[in-house]
Amino acid sequence: MSREIYLDNSATTRPYDEVIEFVTHISMNVYGNPSSLHTKGIEAERMVRNAREIVAKSLGVSRDEIYFTSGGTEANNLAISGYLYANPRKGKHIITTKIEHPSVMEVYNNLSQYGYKVDFIDVDKNGIVIVDDLRKKINEETSLISVIYINNETGAVQPVEEIAEIKNSLNRDIVLHVDAVQAYGKIKIAPKKQGIDILTMSSHKIHGPKGVGALYASRDIKLKPVIFGGGQESQLRSGTENVPGICGFGAAVDITFRTIEESAGRCENLKALLLDMLKREVEDVVVISPEGASPYILNVSFLNVRAEVLLHHLETKNIFVSTGAACSSRKQVLSHVLKAMGIKPEIIEGAIRFSFSSFNTEEDIIKTVEAIKDILPKIRIKRGGRK
Amino acid sequence: MSREIYLDNSATTRPYDEVIEFVTHISMNVYGNPSSLHTKGIEAERMVRNAREIVAKSLGVSRDEIYFTSGGTEANNLAISGYLYANPRKGKHIITTKIEHPSVMEVYNNLSQYGYKVDFIDVDKNGIVIVDDLRKKINEETSLISVIYINNETGAVQPVEEIAEIKNSLNRDIVLHVDAVQAYGKIKIAPKKQGIDILTMSSHKIHGPKGVGALYASRDIKLKPVIFGGGQESQLRSGTENVPGICGFGAAVDITFRTIEESAGRCENLKALLLDMLKREVEDVVVISPEGASPYILNVSFLNVRAEVLLHHLETKNIFVSTGAACSSRKQVLSHVLKAMGIKPEIIEGAIRFSFSSFNTEEDIIKTVEAIKDILPKIRIKRGGRK
Repeated sequence: MSREIYLDNSATTRPYDEVIEFVTHISMNVYGNPSSLHTKGIEAERMVRNAREIVAKSLGVSRDEIYFTSGGTEANNLAISGYLYANPRKGKHIITTKIEHPSVMEVYNNLSQYGYKVDFIDVDKNGIVIVDDLRKKINEETSLISVIYINNETGAVQPVEEIAEIKNSLNRDIVLHVDAVQAYGKIKIAPKKQGIDILTMSSHKIHGPKGVGALYASRDIKLKPVIFGGGQESQLRSGTENVPGICGFGAAVDITFRTIEESAGRCENLKALLLDMLKREVEDVVVISPEGASPYILNVSFLNVRAEVLLHHLETKNIFVSTGAACSSRKQVLSHVLKAMGIKPEIIEGAIRFSFSSFNTEEDIIKTVEAIKDILPKIRIKRGGRK
Repeated sequence: MSREIYLDNSATTRPYDEVIEFVTHISMNVYGNPSSLHTKGIEAERMVRNAREIVAKSLGVSRDEIYFTSGGTEANNLAISGYLYANPRKGKHIITTKIEHPSVMEVYNNLSQYGYKVDFIDVDKNGIVIVDDLRKKINEETSLISVIYINNETGAVQPVEEIAEIKNSLNRDIVLHVDAVQAYGKIKIAPKKQGIDILTMSSHKIHGPKGVGALYASRDIKLKPVIFGGGQESQLRSGTENVPGICGFGAAVDITFRTIEESAGRCENLKALLLDMLKREVEDVVVISPEGASPYILNVSFLNVRAEVLLHHLETKNIFVSTGAACSSRKQVLSHVLKAMGIKPEIIEGAIRFSFSSFNTEEDIIKTVEAIKDILPKIRIKRGGRK
């Protein structure tokens, strides 16, 4: 069979070889429990500290402001529930957007059953938060705002600094949480300069191991654990540390940040090539990702095509894409993100997300377009019958 | 340096070589996101299902009664908070013991701030729950009982079936949660026959990867997530599945259960050898682990010795033990478990936990006793001065 063409890197990535080697090495040799008093524990603790330093450095923050979790989902839960439960006297009004990942959306839905009032801010046709709406919603009861940095379905980059400025001009006490799962390692983030108080990261989106994530929380933010126990991670996240996973995440961050511009440039070119070829060579394509979106994500709709059918035809050619966010793609519902952008259902039905990594090549793109051109005539629905 | 003698297997274990190989293989080749619709997602999902079947089979339960988590701590949190939050109309009275792991203890401490009344049942001098106390505490408001199956510090095996019978005779509605982190893979557990409704397991205590655990919950038990998001694990535990970790756990369970009796026999012999040699060759030793305790744990106190000093002397000889539960050993407080047994502070101060695995040998034990005999005269505190 032909070489695998994996264009679903926003769902998950293949780990770097160096990461897998390092995880294997740590699993075999540094298997102690960081809580143990003896050298095997101390050695494990030191490896975790190294990883913590790498993550901290990548954001320009202190290592005591980084907390490891079991992934981005847990980090989002800890950020939101952790902040609100730790600060019960702050207001019960919270704001987020209509294009969040389920790991933010569902936390807010849960909180709304416990006396919190949640406002979901609209986005414009480009999938970008309407900041004037946000401005109008902020009141003296508002305690927390959550915004996704780069949307996982469209790649739309949200105006994080502008949001930080608006909230600071109206109510400095409001805490800003940013879900940076699709942004971390893709663009440079400096939370302290950008006015971000809490930031969510994930390992497996940047060629690190699955089962690891991290939270940056500014030193002056008080959080309460979501998971209670032995008091690891400065009392914030109990449970024996996933030492090999954390070390692998550190290794992935190290490689990712050394090549951050090179990777972004490479993916920008691949995305431009794909977009150009689709526009020139394929009929009835609607581009969903806005101008200026992440170079790692291109969402386009093939009119009169059911995206899932195209996806399955592509996989027979060893090409892997997504019809929407992987995290909710098993649900047979139209994407809440594309609906929030006001996109018509018949366009949403044909939407495919191509997501890139530095492992992809120009040849991958060319072969993908060839495959699409081959498949489309067989699967396009002829609307109206006799055209 | 001499071969490493690792006798801290209740804190964590070295993964089986086969487990590390399998994790590496999965990380490299089965890197898809189980939520993805394409074959790379389906392949990953199938591997997770295989692991789920292995775990289910090991307990004689259905695969849809097994939920993977990020570890034993999260599983304990999900069991307790998840049950209580899902069943708010059940009573607000909950019962546990004075010898639980912090991942149970701290969940109950947290819940006691939210209107729950928690009773902590006493243990006898052997560290075994006093079932008559439990009987007296059960009332019509009681909704949940949590008991550790094998205590992590002493190895004391708790009378789980008896507890199940007592609660069933008084109030069948009460749910029994058992923390089996130190029992799973060490003794055979059949939750359905033993009256256990919810059971906590951990991977890294049985030579599996860190960062993975599981919960068995009987089909008729309603739980609510602790972590919200994309709805993985049948809506109970959101977050992209740690596919390699889960697969590694499955592989570890497979090996562990194929050799469960052989390992227990081996560790029983090693424990008996250590106990016998300590009694015969070392003065002023007090055995803390009761008769009939787990073959994997021996807790003894060396009188007039500060356990931490002995631990550090042993590590210079490449021998690794624990002074107490690893999960709380960084805290400079006397073990709550040994205190609950009524052991005097001066005995607790000298307590060392030796914990075994099938990787240990007779030679390990003999060398350890030699080392202790060598170290003790140098570190024993001469009380009273001139004896």
